[in-house]
Amino acid sequence: MPASIGDVAEHAGVSVATVSRALRGLPNVAPSTRARVLEAAARLGYVADARAAGLASGRTRTIGVAVPLIGPWFFSQVLAGVEAVVTDRDLDLLVLTVDDDAGRQRLASGARLRGRVDGVIAVDVALTEEQRATLAANDLPAVLVGLRGEDLPCVLVDNVEVGRTATEHLLSLGHTRIGLVGHARDDPLRFSVPEERRRGYHEALAAAGIEPDPRLELDGNFSIPGGAEAAEALLALPEPPTAILAMSDEMAFGCLRLARQRGLAVPGDLSVVGVDDHDVAAAWDLTTVSQPVQGMGEQAAELLLAVIDAGATAPAHLTVPSRLRVRGTTGPAKADRTPSRSTQDAIT
Amino acid sequence: MPASIGDVAEHAGVSVATVSRALRGLPNVAPSTRARVLEAAARLGYVADARAAGLASGRTRTIGVAVPLIGPWFFSQVLAGVEAVVTDRDLDLLVLTVDDDAGRQRLASGARLRGRVDGVIAVDVALTEEQRATLAANDLPAVLVGLRGEDLPCVLVDNVEVGRTATEHLLSLGHTRIGLVGHARDDPLRFSVPEERRRGYHEALAAAGIEPDPRLELDGNFSIPGGAEAAEALLALPEPPTAILAMSDEMAFGCLRLARQRGLAVPGDLSVVGVDDHDVAAAWDLTTVSQPVQGMGEQAAELLLAVIDAGATAPAHLTVPSRLRVRGTTGPAKADRTPSRSTQDAIT
Repeated sequence: MPASIGDVAEHAGVSVATVSRALRGLPNVAPSTRARVLEAAARLGYVADARAAGLASGRTRTIGVAVPLIGPWFFSQVLAGVEAVVTDRDLDLLVLTVDDDAGRQRLASGARLRGRVDGVIAVDVALTEEQRATLAANDLPAVLVGLRGEDLPCVLVDNVEVGRTATEHLLSLGHTRIGLVGHARDDPLRFSVPEERRRGYHEALAAAGIEPDPRLELDGNFSIPGGAEAAEALLALPEPPTAILAMSDEMAFGCLRLARQRGLAVPGDLSVVGVDDHDVAAAWDLTTVSQPVQGMGEQAAELLLAVIDAGATAPAHLTVPSRLRVRGTTGPAKADRTPSRSTQDAIT
Repeated sequence: MPASIGDVAEHAGVSVATVSRALRGLPNVAPSTRARVLEAAARLGYVADARAAGLASGRTRTIGVAVPLIGPWFFSQVLAGVEAVVTDRDLDLLVLTVDDDAGRQRLASGARLRGRVDGVIAVDVALTEEQRATLAANDLPAVLVGLRGEDLPCVLVDNVEVGRTATEHLLSLGHTRIGLVGHARDDPLRFSVPEERRRGYHEALAAAGIEPDPRLELDGNFSIPGGAEAAEALLALPEPPTAILAMSDEMAFGCLRLARQRGLAVPGDLSVVGVDDHDVAAAWDLTTVSQPVQGMGEQAAELLLAVIDAGATAPAHLTVPSRLRVRGTTGPAKADRTPSRSTQDAIT
């Protein structure tokens, strides 16, 4: 294990902050102290991480958060989690949206980032080579939320497990034709989450000896209307599914709306399971695989600040637990596939 | 009406930008032009607004948005609206949360704001005298969203009308005992919206000759659980209401959840109307008074940028329209007040 800045501090008998200042050539370090630090660093073979060192002083006291969008529930909750930590440390939060080319360019522009942020949290955004190079060249550490970080620290749930857990729940209720409402594969932001959840769905089906039917997999655009449209298309199939796994609660809400409009009983005629545990999910009695979204924002902020403050550089892949929450929208599959029609009140 | 910078520009035969540069003593203005501008300004009695002038150059290219919280739907949508405009102009967005004393202090700290933002949009936050003074002293224009701005530009719906419209809708359906789920009156952020909606509710009741019953007015904390608790308390009254006006859709969702848990039919046993037209409202078939929340964020950003870019200084009070959207959660009042119990599926 290479020597850490803490090792150097211990050997030199000074604080980590002093080591950082000494190695960066900042004032307020006595020449004799600086010499001691340099000697200790040389003896231990310590190579200062320019990124961490440059940031030890928290130059801008601002954390950048890169998101594709602000409005959808997931992103607003991650932002809220980051904000809680950042504000608690009396830092500011700069929002960097990267939903278009201009936004992606901003995140790849040193001129745009330098002196504005001390580091970046990227939420469901796979950083491009160019963006990574810009961040590194400007001593800006980054932490990813939702996506695997390769060489960067990241906070995420095991999305294969998410897909598998939800599918196994439906299989255990006797469903064998399970619709999957997710996201298109072609994605300029390289958003890998749907692919991983889809893999979990396939794994669970395979374990149950069920051949996947590509007609049951549709794009729901991670929105309520998209979920409703996908459900409509699924129910129009010659052999419609008896259950739907929606990759987000918002898409699940769309499926529920469509079911209500069609007069289908949930879960009598159709079971629906979501992913997220959106604020509204419990009120809707939605069965879902929960992920601690706000907590993921908090942990990403803690990780980033650890890198900035203490010069921690080891990439940490932090997998947070997801959990199946069984509520009222999933139930046993009916032997008879023909959906019944019933007259019902608007929402009850 | 005092002369505007536009008047000066017209008289001097130059652009507003040139007037701004001339009055601030910036280079790139010919001496003869500067003289003509100063003469016109003197003749018209034009007093340069230091705030607008100082900002015409867009020093930081960053807009600050002050919000009590990021997570709740309303705030995330306003932020999304601001972000759309700000990003379109290639500016950045700094989030300033003011939910605690430290946050409020930050917004009153020139050292904290100076050089970081070109202006501030305050969402559902009444600025204190100290905050206003700090903003003015630092040449930082502000625009309010959701609250009346006195001398500041603001973007808001007519919240008295919102309360009146929702109440009149319930009255027209024959309801006479209408619960009101809102917000506590004691509020350090001086959030006046609930008071205004309450006034509209009282006005509509008065117009219908109905004496308000204070027991029917409860705090729902603008959250789903708060709405459920308030609904529970209302339904436990000796004479429970037959309808509830919730001051936000999120509180209305809580009311609907409670109704479902109690086996009450909606709207058969209980009508519920919300305010917002939350993304999820349509999927839930919720009757609500919609407000264009994202649009309010966009318009506030446009107003602020107009002040920053063009030196517009006239306070604009922009009232955007709210609209009743009748869906499935409101219906005729039953003559018989005793709620019926029915066995129902989880959500249908």
